[in-house]
Amino acid sequence: MTLNIEPLTAESFAPFGEVIQTESAHSFLINNGTTERFHALAAVELLEENSDVTRENHCRAIISIFRAEARHFPFSVSMLEKHPLGSQAFIPLSGEPYLVVVATGMDSPGQLRAFIATATQGVNYRAGVWHHPLLALHKTCDFLVVDRQGSGVNCIEDDLDPPYLLIYP
Amino acid sequence: MTLNIEPLTAESFAPFGEVIQTESAHSFLINNGTTERFHALAAVELLEENSDVTRENHCRAIISIFRAEARHFPFSVSMLEKHPLGSQAFIPLSGEPYLVVVATGMDSPGQLRAFIATATQGVNYRAGVWHHPLLALHKTCDFLVVDRQGSGVNCIEDDLDPPYLLIYP
Repeated sequence: MTLNIEPLTAESFAPFGEVIQTESAHSFLINNGTTERFHALAAVELLEENSDVTRENHCRAIISIFRAEARHFPFSVSMLEKHPLGSQAFIPLSGEPYLVVVATGMDSPGQLRAFIATATQGVNYRAGVWHHPLLALHKTCDFLVVDRQGSGVNCIEDDLDPPYLLIYP
Repeated sequence: MTLNIEPLTAESFAPFGEVIQTESAHSFLINNGTTERFHALAAVELLEENSDVTRENHCRAIISIFRAEARHFPFSVSMLEKHPLGSQAFIPLSGEPYLVVVATGMDSPGQLRAFIATATQGVNYRAGVWHHPLLALHKTCDFLVVDRQGSGVNCIEDDLDPPYLLIYP
């Protein structure tokens, strides 16, 4: 089955998380009027497997950089993953668009959707949202990543059989 | 007094926080070998004013975008600020270098230092580190920001009298 690629908007992506972008975002001036703050575009979720332990002992938010190879198309989407204990945000650093594949299901992925993000749109997958690993397009690209570090099983994969096909451009 | 502008390196910035960059950073392969993860380049600090309340009720890490006007030089550094309850990370999104001014003091800033960061270097100020608000150079620039949202007094400013002078280039 071929996945239709939709433009990425805050509204279309709302079931999966936040789009990190200045467009249409709330802002206010800070730093004596020299800086416009587009505030709280996304929130970092930090959950514990065992809810009666305190957060400070077991997990924290970390900032990493992922360097992703460009994919070859048509691309076979044969697996998805999810992080039940934390959100995961990706912000493009290389000035290139990229693809985002997500699914609405809970225990298994269910219905997939594909989006094309511009070079100035980041995404924040909420905890537990099925998504495909990074899909860079034209060249190797860097992404800033904000996610959870801590104890507990925070990566679950699911194979898709049959796979979906992603045709780009 | 004129501030000497130093190159930004992990070592020179260590007293103030982390430099968020791939250069010389630890990495490993993920996503079936298609992605190199430069892991945990910085950690988000979330503190409570009152340490006996649980973190989940009072603060969280958020992701924002700051759009900073270019400064005019020579620039008078007449104040610094600090955030005692959380770290604050800035990652350049506009492909431009910028200046970083920090100080080593506790209650008051004390000795200032100035660094020039390249377009591929972010900084993470640890909680309580004195720093100047964003200093963009050549044009209005966007920065991704990861900091703390929550209750408590998390911004303290201090005026510098006499001010320091920053000469660029």
